[in-house]
Amino acid sequence: MKKRKFWGWGYEDQLLTEEEDKSIERRIAQNFSLDEVKSVPIPKAEEIELPKSRVSIPSNLSEVLTEDHLERLNHSYGKSFPDIARSILGIFPSPPDLVAYPKSQTEVESTLDWADQNKIAVIPYGGGSSVCGGVETDVGDDFRAVISMDMRKMDKILEIDKESRAARIEAGILGPDLENQLKEHDLTLRHFPQSFEHSTLGGWIATRSGGHYATLYTHIDDFVESTTTVTPSGVIESRRLPGSGAGPSPDRMIIGSEGVLGVITESWIRLQNRPTFRSSCSVHFSDYAQALNATRLISQAALFPANCRLLDANEAMFNGAGDGSKHLLIINFESADHDMQPWLDRALEIAKSEGGEFELPKEKDAHKSGASGNWRNSFIRAPYYREASIRRGVVQDTFETSITWDKGYDFIETLKRRAQEAIKEITNRDTTVTCRLTHTYPDGLAPYFTYSAFATPDTMIDVWKEIKIATNEICVSEQGTVTHHHAVGRDHRVKGYDLQRPEGYKDMLLAAKEKIDPNSILNPGVLIDPKGYSHKHWMER
Amino acid sequence: MKKRKFWGWGYEDQLLTEEEDKSIERRIAQNFSLDEVKSVPIPKAEEIELPKSRVSIPSNLSEVLTEDHLERLNHSYGKSFPDIARSILGIFPSPPDLVAYPKSQTEVESTLDWADQNKIAVIPYGGGSSVCGGVETDVGDDFRAVISMDMRKMDKILEIDKESRAARIEAGILGPDLENQLKEHDLTLRHFPQSFEHSTLGGWIATRSGGHYATLYTHIDDFVESTTTVTPSGVIESRRLPGSGAGPSPDRMIIGSEGVLGVITESWIRLQNRPTFRSSCSVHFSDYAQALNATRLISQAALFPANCRLLDANEAMFNGAGDGSKHLLIINFESADHDMQPWLDRALEIAKSEGGEFELPKEKDAHKSGASGNWRNSFIRAPYYREASIRRGVVQDTFETSITWDKGYDFIETLKRRAQEAIKEITNRDTTVTCRLTHTYPDGLAPYFTYSAFATPDTMIDVWKEIKIATNEICVSEQGTVTHHHAVGRDHRVKGYDLQRPEGYKDMLLAAKEKIDPNSILNPGVLIDPKGYSHKHWMER
Repeated sequence: MKKRKFWGWGYEDQLLTEEEDKSIERRIAQNFSLDEVKSVPIPKAEEIELPKSRVSIPSNLSEVLTEDHLERLNHSYGKSFPDIARSILGIFPSPPDLVAYPKSQTEVESTLDWADQNKIAVIPYGGGSSVCGGVETDVGDDFRAVISMDMRKMDKILEIDKESRAARIEAGILGPDLENQLKEHDLTLRHFPQSFEHSTLGGWIATRSGGHYATLYTHIDDFVESTTTVTPSGVIESRRLPGSGAGPSPDRMIIGSEGVLGVITESWIRLQNRPTFRSSCSVHFSDYAQALNATRLISQAALFPANCRLLDANEAMFNGAGDGSKHLLIINFESADHDMQPWLDRALEIAKSEGGEFELPKEKDAHKSGASGNWRNSFIRAPYYREASIRRGVVQDTFETSITWDKGYDFIETLKRRAQEAIKEITNRDTTVTCRLTHTYPDGLAPYFTYSAFATPDTMIDVWKEIKIATNEICVSEQGTVTHHHAVGRDHRVKGYDLQRPEGYKDMLLAAKEKIDPNSILNPGVLIDPKGYSHKHWMER
Repeated sequence: MKKRKFWGWGYEDQLLTEEEDKSIERRIAQNFSLDEVKSVPIPKAEEIELPKSRVSIPSNLSEVLTEDHLERLNHSYGKSFPDIARSILGIFPSPPDLVAYPKSQTEVESTLDWADQNKIAVIPYGGGSSVCGGVETDVGDDFRAVISMDMRKMDKILEIDKESRAARIEAGILGPDLENQLKEHDLTLRHFPQSFEHSTLGGWIATRSGGHYATLYTHIDDFVESTTTVTPSGVIESRRLPGSGAGPSPDRMIIGSEGVLGVITESWIRLQNRPTFRSSCSVHFSDYAQALNATRLISQAALFPANCRLLDANEAMFNGAGDGSKHLLIINFESADHDMQPWLDRALEIAKSEGGEFELPKEKDAHKSGASGNWRNSFIRAPYYREASIRRGVVQDTFETSITWDKGYDFIETLKRRAQEAIKEITNRDTTVTCRLTHTYPDGLAPYFTYSAFATPDTMIDVWKEIKIATNEICVSEQGTVTHHHAVGRDHRVKGYDLQRPEGYKDMLLAAKEKIDPNSILNPGVLIDPKGYSHKHWMER
């Protein structure tokens, strides 16, 4: 396996060019009016000391478990801002004692059995791309040790059913491997979260991942035909069905369970034919309320655009699309079956009626160039750029939520304003919070906010934490959700998920967990605190 | 309130004409080669004796509870074949002691509190249209008494949000009232299960109801924005959101819970604009495999027809559409936004490529006349016709399931054959099991089977039960689901749901129930047997 970067995004050889790195430094100096910007050096694994592993590997698991130094570093954190910040600063107080790389469902079962018998916590790591503290191994002293379970050796497509357009796939497969293998069969899952390169199918299911597309089939929730999950009390395998009315859906309990109920080992997944017809256009608006209204009307017309992504003027500019004077709505239709021009024409008619201005693109591959092409590139490169900011101590992060259309405009304006005020109070500097819509629904929208806040390498973790708790509170108190597709993990609980979730539902979820994970070894502190769990995560301290 | 027919479908004044009744009798005589057909008279409520109610109504619930004779008759059963058969025969050994008609959430809470404190079972009745034993009050001697909770006085639309196209609606509203009130706002829920006239919003949610439309937004699951549910341990209210990734969906645990977790009192529901554009056509096929293939390809083309209903040749003939030589595919597109002719054209192109033959309709209202109009009328009248059959002792019933496309053709042929064999063995007569598809998905289909089996008023209940258990077994052993949209209730458990549901999921569901309904008063025996529940339902005896 290629070696991953323990202190950042991607593989060790995926680094920014020196020019890219310097240009970010220049932008930081400019943004915050600094004469000089200090940079923390890239850390070296061999210079970081870790506490000794508290348990020895039993002989039956010698092929599964490892206490390798780099693996333990790599599995201490996910990829959130404080995860990368702590890694760059060499702060690793609670690494996993062991890392598991199961190659089969049997090995997952054996590992869970051993952990359960020995009161060892197990953190399902998936591909490790969590940006909400979902895979952090800081679980306190209630456990004898901690195992991080990396699923990436379970990466095979086991069966393909072309007629139903579905496949049975091991949960540890990474996005690119999945798509490459499906391509041979002219099929695609067509699920492209920003973490695509470094996240797994099982991780997507466990976190209710949202794809790059804006409407209809984009959430992993809708692609799941069945799941197989290993729990400390046995395997739960649901039946493969296109639809069913037999009781509450077993899959819908696993989808979003974030590793607290079990380890997803495989899934039958719905696929699609590869799109060959594409029609797209970028629309500019001077007025944000009108832009939002156009987006709403298009979302309610049952046209189902692949993209219907509204970037506010600042967000467009920061992504290299526009000069900051116009809001940008990227509309894109795709089909494997038929020409989508009539669909696009109708969407543009709606956009025009709300004051949208556009020129129909002349080239065929418009979706890969122009405004929408610029957007695509910066979307994929964003996680790499962030590393450079973090090395300069600048807090660059996002928060995302959803709301119904009736509250849409006020909600977005209020969230921007309140987040800016909070950041000003915390950092004593002005900042601009920008917004794009990642997903739209007939009844609402999912806004995604980006900010950049001044801090130094010494203060950045505390500053980030204060801002995170503030934005959690803002999303939830304004009637949104604390997360639309990033998941809850540990970071979104304080002033967020814990307030938003119905109390009776928490009781049911806890009771269900206690039944199948009686020793509470699975991902303690994520979503809920299991019975008797006394550890306070650093977000709560 | 209008008085309902305690022995059949609908209101007391909704009777077949004498001519309709006689024509069914003639058809029965012809089908089963009988010289004479005996008919059980319509029962009279005052001639049926009921055991005395075992509890007195407490003063604080005098406005909510009743022990009225007709109400108790009316709430003893749902509307399945054996429910109506027993009613017509005057068999009422286990009526509810009391019937509750709460007018508010507070009254639901007070009733549950009293029942919980006194070990009285509560059966959420919704509108009472269950066809799977979901509202039967036969719960044995574990309880001091039984209350059937009829929700139809909670029938108001509380709030309408036109911008998001959503409404907050009390759960007891019946289909026609809901649509009439929404019509004033130019909106529609567009959810039309066959039970539409006599079922409630809360009942649809509790049973994962499937609407009349074939694809996309047709299941109640997808219309639910949030739910409010009263449990013996308090109220569970989820947050109104267009989409969320914050943990497993609380709503998806309530959807399909069939009254075992709580009583749904209201819900924010997603609505649609009223369709004004329609394009439809009927396509005939000589070959069933080709017809099925056409249906699959249309379902996989992302065209999302409102209907895409394939009737096999016999089913078409029995519904007055065709002479039994051709399979009939009814394709229909609807939109509130744009002309759907390009969509229909593409669907017909696909149908043609698989050997489909059609003539484009000339009139505008084609969907209300011709083959598709005949189909519509018999769909709505079917529950009334069934009463006439039951009075003659003829077992006329349906079973429905779903399967992925890869197994589609063989599955349908095998189910028909095995059901016919089972009915032959049970009744000693040949019968024809017919099939239509009620819903189609990109990855599969939902076939719906209809049969008519010979019995007499004396034997019909036993014959039905034997056939029901056989068809449960056939659906599940052939890898389908025991129910696609009728729900599980008590009738689909034996050789059905109990085998299909993952054991670990049952454990979680039971643990969740025990947590919020510790005395197991809610709908005991539906979906699961709560802890300590020893009663054997008559399906299990």
